[in-house]
Parts: sequence; structure tokens; C-alpha cells
Amino acid sequence: MTTASTDLSRPLAARQAIRLGQWQRHTSGLAPGYAQANLVILPARYAEDFLRFCQRNPRACPLLGVTDPGDPHPRSLGADIDLRHDVPRYRLYRDGISSAEPTDIADLWQDDFVTFSIGCSFSFEDALIADGLEVRHIQLDRNVPMYRTHVPLEPSGPFGGNLVVSMRPFRPADAIRAIQITTDMPRVHGAPVHIGLPASLGIADLARPDFGDAPVIHDDELPVFWACGVTPQAAIEAARLPLVITHSPGHMLITDIPNHRLKYG
Amino acid sequence: MTTASTDLSRPLAARQAIRLGQWQRHTSGLAPGYAQANLVILPARYAEDFLRFCQRNPRACPLLGVTDPGDPHPRSLGADIDLRHDVPRYRLYRDGISSAEPTDIADLWQDDFVTFSIGCSFSFEDALIADGLEVRHIQLDRNVPMYRTHVPLEPSGPFGGNLVVSMRPFRPADAIRAIQITTDMPRVHGAPVHIGLPASLGIADLARPDFGDAPVIHDDELPVFWACGVTPQAAIEAARLPLVITHSPGHMLITDIPNHRLKYG
Repeated sequence: MTTASTDLSRPLAARQAIRLGQWQRHTSGLAPGYAQANLVILPARYAEDFLRFCQRNPRACPLLGVTDPGDPHPRSLGADIDLRHDVPRYRLYRDGISSAEPTDIADLWQDDFVTFSIGCSFSFEDALIADGLEVRHIQLDRNVPMYRTHVPLEPSGPFGGNLVVSMRPFRPADAIRAIQITTDMPRVHGAPVHIGLPASLGIADLARPDFGDAPVIHDDELPVFWACGVTPQAAIEAARLPLVITHSPGHMLITDIPNHRLKYG
Repeated sequence: MTTASTDLSRPLAARQAIRLGQWQRHTSGLAPGYAQANLVILPARYAEDFLRFCQRNPRACPLLGVTDPGDPHPRSLGADIDLRHDVPRYRLYRDGISSAEPTDIADLWQDDFVTFSIGCSFSFEDALIADGLEVRHIQLDRNVPMYRTHVPLEPSGPFGGNLVVSMRPFRPADAIRAIQITTDMPRVHGAPVHIGLPASLGIADLARPDFGDAPVIHDDELPVFWACGVTPQAAIEAARLPLVITHSPGHMLITDIPNHRLKYG
């Protein structure tokens, strides 16, 4: 354990600042260029069902790393990661209800906990911007709009429910380019699941997202929909397990994986 | 030169039947699984400009093969091809005006002729169908609808004008899949150039295509637009050269290239 650096542009230094309680805010902008991950932690007796749930719904739940029971160190995601401390804010679900948002879970850790790190759209948004596309909600400094759909997930054990999607508007040629770019990034949600006809997904009004901020869509643009990392959290709420721990939205796990390494899976 | 086989399912046998005048109709369904090509033949003094035109507009004019001046044998496209005979019906343009449709051009051949074989959407339609997608106009046994757009081509010498597109309707998820599949086939027009908003291309009424048959589009579908092999013919008409020879629409050059070999270019 070293003294935390104040340089939060590197993943290890950012995680150390988080571990020491020096950074408790959202992780947007930290360690730019490195993948951030959604986190789900649950007892081993539910892990097999949740693993199968992720395998069956890979666009919504692309697994970057899964630990052995009791092991808080997802070694494939970076050096010296400890998931008892290294996320700036966690969220506890008890019986499916969000009950607290601690900044450390060492006192809650159980020797049967299994951790699931799930790819995040930040990585493909980086790739879209690097290609010259305009990602509207980032340009406007808003949260991405997210919608519950009527598209059923493939269930597994207590996990199921419907897909949640995020939406980004693009002109048609840019939408095609965004499909091409994200097709090559299956570990961070991959290609869009839908384009152009929100009613087909059961979305009644694009102006009123279920999560995030309302979008700005121009007349010459189409809405493009990706499977969203909020989907597993919705499934966890619906499963009503005694205890599940996730990250708090926006307060992600920072990994050592460069976003460009997520190309081709 | 061998006796023509009656088995038109193999490219060489089909070309031999065409060469002997035993097949003068369109080539749809001949030698299934093998690429068919659009053909442009023009004098060497225009060849460099036309080559540059194709290079600058690769979605509309993806070159599969270009011969040396005077050589009627595009060796990279198949065994024993002779472009003086091996297309069932040619079209002559004199001063940009379609003037005749002979079944053989041996008597018109010039020792400065350069031939351009250009990829054709038949190949990617095969790939879409093999993936399980429904290609509407094929299912309805109609010609694909094609539209003049207001999208300018990159000009070269006398060649220019606007892009012509073909349109196939798909439900959104299938449209995304079609984008993915055709992205990998750049030598046969590649990815779509547009999706969903025909007015953005300058298309006023989808029900009234400029070439081909009117489409059938369902409410839950989006129109998806690909650059079309009619584009070079439109450019040739506009260039008003003394003599250019093409294939007659639908009467293509049958190559020895399996369609699946066109994946990744």
C-alpha cells in the first residue's frame, strides 16, 4: 500500500485515492482512456444463476470479470484491486430495496461473496468520440437517457425482467458508423439493439426517460438504443434477494484495461 | 473451348453457355453462391479518370477487377473469361445515350478498351439471406427499388453526378444486423450509406423509385439504403463519351469468386 498520488489520470492512483477515502464522488473523467465497470456483488448461492443470467443476456450484462467466492481481487481487471474498498460509493439492496450507499464495504464483506464486473458504455462512448462522432448527452454535460422496454430478458433463477436501454441520437450516417464501432466492442454492450422506432420497444415518449436526463434529438437524427448496464440493477431489484451490493450509479470501478483493448472482445 | 454444359450452376459452365449464345437472359439464379459483377468498358484515354472516379466513390463503384488496355480477360475474376462474349447482353452508350443491346461485342472490341468489373449487391443479398434475414424484393420476386439522391459523388474528369441508392426495408434489429453483415463486404458496396430518413437524401417519395419496382414497407420497418451499382451507369450517361459499353441491367458477368470470399474485402 503506497501513499495515494494526486494524479487521478492513472487507474492505480485513482483507485488508491478512492480506497483511502480521498475521492468519494462519481468517476466520470477519472483515468481517461481506461475502462470503468459496473459492479454486482452477491452471495455464492446466487452466483451460478446470475452468471447464467449474464451469459444469456450478454448485451445488457457483458462480463469483464468474475471472482471466486470470497475473493475481493478481480486480478484480470488490474493490479491490486480490492473490491471491498476501491469503488467510491456502493449501493446496498436488501430484499430488492436500495437501503444505503456506503463508501466502503469491508465490514459487510462475506467469505461467500462473488463479484461481477460488467462492461460500461463509457468505453464505447470514448470510441465514438475518438472517431469524431458527437455524443449529445456528453456534449450537453447531461446524464444519458435510459428507458425501460417491454423486451423480456432471458431469465435465470430469480433474475429476469425486461431490458433497460440507453439512447443516443445520431444522424443516419453517424448512426451507421456508431453501429460499426460498437459492434467491435462486445464486452461493453456491443452493437445497438434498436434504432429508429421507440414504440417497437414499448417506449411511449422519448422525452420522458425512466432514468437519466431528457434527450435533445434533432429532426435529422434517429434515436439509437443500446442495452444498458442499469438492466442488471433492475433485475436485482426484482429478484428481492436478502443482500446484494452494487456500485452507486456513476461511481464505477476503474480498471487497468485501456478502452481500445476492448475492441473485438 | 469446350462444349457448353447444361449445368448452369457452375460459373464456367454458365459463362460457356452465354458465350455460345445459349443463354441470353438475365443472370439471376445462375451459378448460385458466386459473385456477379457490373461491367463498364471504355477506351484507355478515359480509363484513368474512371479509375479515379471509382477510387473516390468506393461504396458506389467497388472495383473487383480492371484489365490492361486491349485485354478482354479479367484473370483475377475467373478462368477463361472473355469479356467480348461472356455477358449475355451488353448495352452500348454513344454520346451518353443507350443505343443498342447486343449479346456479343467481339465486332466492337478495340485494342485500347479497358474493362472495369464492379461488385454487385447480389453478393451481399446472398449473405443477408444466409443469415436468416428476409430481403423483401427477392421474396416478392420484384426488382430492388432504386432512387436518385442529391448526394454528390466525388467527381473525376468527365465522371460525376449524384449517388444512386438501392433500398431494402428491415425491422430495426434486422437493419442493425444487415449493417453488420454488409460492413464486412466492402467489395460489394459495403455498409449502407443511410437509414431511416429518405428526405435527408433528397428522396421525396419512397413509393416512386427512379429505377426498379415500388417497395413494400411495413410500419415496423425502416428503409435502409445502400450505394447502388446503377451509379456508374448514371455517371457514364452524364459524361456523354463517344462510346462506352456496359452490361445490360440484370445481365451480369458471372465470376468464379464465391460470395463468402468477398467478406472483409
